Amino acid sequence: MADQILPSWRDGDTRDAILGFLDRVDEIPPAHRVAVFDNDGTMWAEKPNYPQLEFWFLEMQEAIGADPSLADKPEFRAVIDRDMATIEELGLEGLATAFLDLFAGITPEEFDVKVARFFAEQQHPRGVPYRQQRYQPMLELMDELRSRGFDFYLVSAGGAEFVRVISQDFYGVSPEGVVGSQIDYEFTRAADGTPRLLRTNHVVHSGPNEGQAKVPNIHRILGRRPVVAGGNSPGDAEMLEYAMTYDGPSLALLVNHDDAEREYAYESKAGTFDTEETILETAARLGWTVASIRNDWATVFSDS
Amino acid sequence: MADQILPSWRDGDTRDAILGFLDRVDEIPPAHRVAVFDNDGTMWAEKPNYPQLEFWFLEMQEAIGADPSLADKPEFRAVIDRDMATIEELGLEGLATAFLDLFAGITPEEFDVKVARFFAEQQHPRGVPYRQQRYQPMLELMDELRSRGFDFYLVSAGGAEFVRVISQDFYGVSPEGVVGSQIDYEFTRAADGTPRLLRTNHVVHSGPNEGQAKVPNIHRILGRRPVVAGGNSPGDAEMLEYAMTYDGPSLALLVNHDDAEREYAYESKAGTFDTEETILETAARLGWTVASIRNDWATVFSDS
Repeated sequence: MADQILPSWRDGDTRDAILGFLDRVDEIPPAHRVAVFDNDGTMWAEKPNYPQLEFWFLEMQEAIGADPSLADKPEFRAVIDRDMATIEELGLEGLATAFLDLFAGITPEEFDVKVARFFAEQQHPRGVPYRQQRYQPMLELMDELRSRGFDFYLVSAGGAEFVRVISQDFYGVSPEGVVGSQIDYEFTRAADGTPRLLRTNHVVHSGPNEGQAKVPNIHRILGRRPVVAGGNSPGDAEMLEYAMTYDGPSLALLVNHDDAEREYAYESKAGTFDTEETILETAARLGWTVASIRNDWATVFSDS
Repeated sequence: MADQILPSWRDGDTRDAILGFLDRVDEIPPAHRVAVFDNDGTMWAEKPNYPQLEFWFLEMQEAIGADPSLADKPEFRAVIDRDMATIEELGLEGLATAFLDLFAGITPEEFDVKVARFFAEQQHPRGVPYRQQRYQPMLELMDELRSRGFDFYLVSAGGAEFVRVISQDFYGVSPEGVVGSQIDYEFTRAADGTPRLLRTNHVVHSGPNEGQAKVPNIHRILGRRPVVAGGNSPGDAEMLEYAMTYDGPSLALLVNHDDAEREYAYESKAGTFDTEETILETAARLGWTVASIRNDWATVFSDS
């Protein structure tokens, strides 16, 4: 069997570590078989931009077409000028605050239609559908975990509602299996009294689903305790660390973006746990399994 | 087929209305087949006390045994004296605030052990396990919905963590399928740096999962839009009303506790939508289906 599973993973220490974990799954009670994976940069490519950022670009352009004065908004200006330094500085969360105004006052269904249209009509800059930006080796690992009774969840800093539109199709994850950054909704009534639920521009009190926040959010939203966690950035560190505290076999898998040729080569400048330790140093110190895209993945992207 | 399904529902308008809805499920796209049901008083009995309140009673007694000064706390005093007027006045939420102190600083797993022990060791005052306080007709309806492709969720004002301990066993609902009142968690570290997640005594910003709050919480937590909703009190009204706004067949089912002999006979004193309209008047006005326990249920409780 071992030579048939995980075909996109090259032989080596990383594949051996994963297989070693899979061999021990019997030691984990079925109710504890819970896997949580980050999405951007872990399950699909996040470069040159987060797909959600590309979605915002397009929505912004459409909004500016209808109301040119919007172009004066500093966050929009940075995006229009492709001022990547400012964009990087604002971060996904800083931009989110500005962009969430675009969707305030519409229903969840109206938002879903916009996202579905984005994925149906747009392609990744590489010239392929976003579906083909999914990482084939991670999909294989997902399947192996599921075949061993794991429940597989997505835990993303991205908007929960954005990810949920494609989570079933891309990963077989139902909407309630997605933990993401959440906006508040407002319960309103039309003139005739009919209730309508509308998006606001507020992110819920716990803030973006990133870093430390991922751990309590997993418990609040899913009510489960992870024993397998996958990530690629300091924003995933606490989640991986927490999975490793399980009193039994556990797996913390870090994707290392070191393949400029087939994917992208980059390292987060942010330190882990608000220190200066890099995420790779943290991984080494805490014994996480590191997947080098260059060395460990025979195939990078899904072709389906 | 029609004479074999829903065997615990007596012939009549209510059963006909449910069967009429089930016959039209084909008109609902599979992805829209989402059912949300309240728990207390809708899926199981909530009298003479909410099961969660009985759990709190026991935990309080244990805590007072360890620290007698706790008995001076007004909320605890009301419970000790079985001062039902004060308890009623404080409401589930008022009591919750006091009782949540009992569980602050423990891990989610430690809390789960307490709840599991409660259900394993305690019985309902009727002298049966709490499992047998589930309503047989509602379980049959749940099964019929599932067999037609519905995802079935619990949306309770009770604590999400409390309900999740028994949701799989009692209703086949996985923990992430439970929307309930949520407490905040605190991410902490032990002296050696190991992360630990601890309960706080704070209910999350959106407050108890009751009334209007149920609708946004369903979208935030589940990412789904219900077309079937079940409830029994003004705290479920907006959820039922919202399900009926679906542009296709929908079902809003209200359980009416009118059977003093086999269950309990009571009516909420609270009005619906902050008006003086009773929940039964609201049901009549908005065309909800009302299940009279006395008239519509041949059997009330599950015997398994």
